[in-house]
Amino acid sequence: MALKKVGAQTISFPNRPAILNWATVTGPREGEGPMGSYFDMVGEDPLLGQESWEKAEQRLMQYSVELVLSKLGWQPQDLDFLFAGDLLNQIISSNFTARELGVPFFGLYGACSTLAEGMALAGILIDGGYGDKIGVAAVSHHNSAEKELRFPTELGSQRAMTAQWTVTGAGAYIMAPSETGSPAGWHLTMATIGKVNDLGVQDSNDMGSAMAPAAFDTIMTHFEDTGRGMADYDCIVTGDLGSLGNKVLLDFFQKANLNPEPVTDCGLFIYDETQDAHSGASGCGCSAVVFGPLFLEGRWNKPLNRVLFVGTGALLSPATSFQGETIPTIAHAVCLERGN
Amino acid sequence: MALKKVGAQTISFPNRPAILNWATVTGPREGEGPMGSYFDMVGEDPLLGQESWEKAEQRLMQYSVELVLSKLGWQPQDLDFLFAGDLLNQIISSNFTARELGVPFFGLYGACSTLAEGMALAGILIDGGYGDKIGVAAVSHHNSAEKELRFPTELGSQRAMTAQWTVTGAGAYIMAPSETGSPAGWHLTMATIGKVNDLGVQDSNDMGSAMAPAAFDTIMTHFEDTGRGMADYDCIVTGDLGSLGNKVLLDFFQKANLNPEPVTDCGLFIYDETQDAHSGASGCGCSAVVFGPLFLEGRWNKPLNRVLFVGTGALLSPATSFQGETIPTIAHAVCLERGN
Repeated sequence: MALKKVGAQTISFPNRPAILNWATVTGPREGEGPMGSYFDMVGEDPLLGQESWEKAEQRLMQYSVELVLSKLGWQPQDLDFLFAGDLLNQIISSNFTARELGVPFFGLYGACSTLAEGMALAGILIDGGYGDKIGVAAVSHHNSAEKELRFPTELGSQRAMTAQWTVTGAGAYIMAPSETGSPAGWHLTMATIGKVNDLGVQDSNDMGSAMAPAAFDTIMTHFEDTGRGMADYDCIVTGDLGSLGNKVLLDFFQKANLNPEPVTDCGLFIYDETQDAHSGASGCGCSAVVFGPLFLEGRWNKPLNRVLFVGTGALLSPATSFQGETIPTIAHAVCLERGN
Repeated sequence: MALKKVGAQTISFPNRPAILNWATVTGPREGEGPMGSYFDMVGEDPLLGQESWEKAEQRLMQYSVELVLSKLGWQPQDLDFLFAGDLLNQIISSNFTARELGVPFFGLYGACSTLAEGMALAGILIDGGYGDKIGVAAVSHHNSAEKELRFPTELGSQRAMTAQWTVTGAGAYIMAPSETGSPAGWHLTMATIGKVNDLGVQDSNDMGSAMAPAAFDTIMTHFEDTGRGMADYDCIVTGDLGSLGNKVLLDFFQKANLNPEPVTDCGLFIYDETQDAHSGASGCGCSAVVFGPLFLEGRWNKPLNRVLFVGTGALLSPATSFQGETIPTIAHAVCLERGN
């Protein structure tokens, strides 16, 4: 059997698994932003009628999976497997969603790289014939994330200008064999699995700068493994470095004498300047709600036929931060190409 | 392409990935127990010379991976991918281990089901030709787990008799294509991926009872999917229900008119009665240090040619427990068969 691994860290998918459909659900703040009309469902209040931020977060993910299934006319039991993860301890939003849906479940932890990690793994299962209807979901909630990773929002702590705003939102994507046909024409063709990077950033209010080296490392490795370069991509979209992290990444490319023109970031589009989000958006849910509606649905500022989506995770834990550790980061890249 | 999915939740591995080797590292308490001489390395103190329980836990995992690599004469860079997870928030032990080793990394969260979840996924990658040297590792540390999930040990809280003792230990397993040859002759032939079960147990001091229904559900689904039954297995070993959870599981089988003779549990063997572990052992690290040395290395009380290893995870989070939620649980089963 020919090894489908290309170079040091890249997997190729000769059978081109299809991204069949996706659905996004957000909180009200995201609904008020520039992308508001693109989301499938926008909650009226950030608690979604629940008693806690954590329960609201779980509902976001559950609704996103139920919505994408309803778009396809499927029931939860039609799914072979679900890959899911979130930012909370013990990935509770994902566990409880899997409980509610009753589907065979692989729990992932990759912080904001979760969607890309899940797409890579689901792609492997589909490509290799180990399943033919696989869900991938990621969620974050601003208030539960702040409570967990920084300061509970109830404290009213001032946010640093370098901080990103964790998105209240969830996205669910369904992958299936290529021959199932992809309405939007998107197929997974490669994945580059990241190593954990750590350039010594300790500031939980500047995760974009912490994650930029991981994104750079994975993208450069992808180029090396595949022989491709910047010009081979219509768009290389990270998720989510925010505005500061995006600048750091562009700097890295310029110093490497590469024109970073195709490079952008999911964290730049959810909030506008009046929404006081500082360095842009972040969280597992950010790229999950931006990637489909903005890039796969053809709303980007030019036609896209080949996109590299680079999920970037800051593997931040309060426990290790209190112990003086720096923030390890990781980035996984998935290449999506259009055309059946 | 023929779908390699069998029944509702089971994957078959026609190429029979090999379990190439494994290594185990524990704390001193585990070294003093009946299995002490089976472990590759036993730490002299539970801090392993580190400043915190969390840093000690990270070292356990790192040492286990380094040890199994050294057994094979490999370096970390020889690994295509590493799958790893632990019990701590944001799976910090695994993230920092991946940072130290510098290998492409998939982060998992499945509580004590992590090793089985990782073996299933690594098996898919090997079987499908997406990699040929893949590591799977899991770790837990008694003191960091108690601090995170129940009471910091420094408080000296009395433990309930139903409580299991979280193992301070790590295990790392290497999987490779069948033709690489497996010195111990073990190959992965099937995996049954669990659904999240929840029969309403709320007591974080009785996780065995919470997990038993998940184990039962996955084993019964495995039988249904494959047409196999109890008698087809030399041993069905859960990890880790402990003595109480094991009794609950045996009851379930008896009520289903199945003779549970092959059924045992990894949590029953690490500590003896003098060690006051109450309901037995648990934690990601428990099955990780028991499964290889006791079952794969031929120390079980009869010869083994076909084993079903059922990793059982209590997806317990203090946040949801405080909010009155019950403990969702999951079990993933992997079938290992002997013979090249």
